[in-house]
Amino acid sequence: MKHYSKKVTVKSEQPRDYFAITQQVSFVVAESEIKNGIVLCYSGSNTSSIFIHIEDKNLLQDIDQCLHKFAPEKPYSQYAFNVNRNDAAAHIKSVFLGRQVSVSVNEGVLELDEDDHIIFADFDGGREKTILVKIIGV
Amino acid sequence: MKHYSKKVTVKSEQPRDYFAITQQVSFVVAESEIKNGIVLCYSGSNTSSIFIHIEDKNLLQDIDQCLHKFAPEKPYSQYAFNVNRNDAAAHIKSVFLGRQVSVSVNEGVLELDEDDHIIFADFDGGREKTILVKIIGV
Amino acid sequence: MKHYSKKVTVKSEQPRDYFAITQQVSFVVAESEIKNGIVLCYSGSNTSSIFIHIEDKNLLQDIDQCLHKFAPEKPYSQYAFNVNRNDAAAHIKSVFLGRQVSVSVNEGVLELDEDDHIIFADFDGGREKTILVKIIGV
Repeated sequence: MKHYSKKVTVKSEQPRDYFAITQQVSFVVAESEIKNGIVLCYSGSNTSSIFIHIEDKNLLQDIDQCLHKFAPEKPYSQYAFNVNRNDAAAHIKSVFLGRQVSVSVNEGVLELDEDDHIIFADFDGGREKTILVKIIGV
Repeated sequence: MKHYSKKVTVKSEQPRDYFAITQQVSFVVAESEIKNGIVLCYSGSNTSSIFIHIEDKNLLQDIDQCLHKFAPEKPYSQYAFNVNRNDAAAHIKSVFLGRQVSVSVNEGVLELDEDDHIIFADFDGGREKTILVKIIGV
Repeated sequence: MKHYSKKVTVKSEQPRDYFAITQQVSFVVAESEIKNGIVLCYSGSNTSSIFIHIEDKNLLQDIDQCLHKFAPEKPYSQYAFNVNRNDAAAHIKSVFLGRQVSVSVNEGVLELDEDDHIIFADFDGGREKTILVKIIGV
C-alpha cells in the first residue's frame, strides 16, 4: 500500500464563494502515482465545506440561499460565538455541509459521475484556505 | 492491498423515496473477497443521497418532511436553477444529506450497529440510479 | 496494509451534548501502530453525530440552536416516529450532521487543522454510546 499527502491552497473571491477543486485534486492523484484506492479531501478551514455536486452557478446560488436562510449572518447578536469576529454563521454552515469527502480512484482517475465535481464552499471568503488531499492505494 | 469497484443499479418507486441498500453493498463486499478494510458508497446521481440510519418508514417520512420544509419544491420560481427541469430542490436536498458514506469491513462483514442500514434517498425518483461501491483492504 | 478496529465508549452528561473525542481516537491510532493511512470514526448510536470542527462551547451552543430550530423536539406529535419514545428529533438531527468522518493519519498523527477536533454530538444524551474507530494503512 502506498500513501500520499499534499496540501493545496485555494483562494475565494467572494465573501461566500463556491467552486470546483476537482482539477487540483486530480493533479495530486497523478503526482502520487497511486492508481487504485481512495482519495480523502479535507478542508483545513472551519468556515468552509467540501461536497460533491455539479458546478452550476445558479444551483450553487440556490444552495447558498437555502443555507443562508437556515443560518443567517445577521443579526450578529443571535449567536453566542459572535464576540470578536462575526463569523458564527460561517462556522455553522461549515458544520452543516461538512468538511470532507472521499472519492474512489480507479486506474488513476477520480471515479465521479461525469457531471459531478468536488466543490469547495467558502463561507468566509477572500482569503487563502488550505485543503489536505490524502491518497491511499496501490 | 486489494481494491474492488462495482456499480450497483437501484430503482426508486416514489417521487421521493428512501430505502436500504445494505444488502446490495454486502454482496459486493463478499464478491470482492476483501475481508478487512473500508467500503465507500457513492451515489452517482446528484438528486440523491446516501446516509447511515435505521430503515423505519415513519422516521424516513419525518426526515423527508423536515428536509422538504428546508428546501421546498414549490414555488419553482424561488430557485435560479429551475429553467428546464424543476428539480432544484432535489439537488439542494442531495447536497444537505450528502452523497457518500464509508463503512468499516471487518472479517468480511459491514461493521454497522445492528439497527443501522446504508440508506439511499432519491429526491427525483422513479428512475434507475447508479451507486458506486469501492472497497480497499486485505 | 494493516488494519485495526476498536470500539470506544463515551458518555454524555446533558440531554444534548457536544464534546471532542480527538484524544480517544488518537490513542487508538497509537495502539494500532499504523503510521500512515486513514482513520474512520463512526458513531454506533443513531441519535448522535460525528463531525470535524472547533470545540468552542459558545459555537457548539449556536450549532445546537440552529439544528433545534430545524428539527424541534416539540410538539412530539409532529413526527410519525414518536410512538414509544419521543426521540424522532434526535434521529433527524443525527441524519443531518452525519454519523461518520474520515481523517488522514500522517506519521502516526491525525492530520487536522490545529484548531480542529473530532466532535461527538449526542442528541439523546446521558447514556453510554459506542464509537467505532477503524484504521487502515501501513
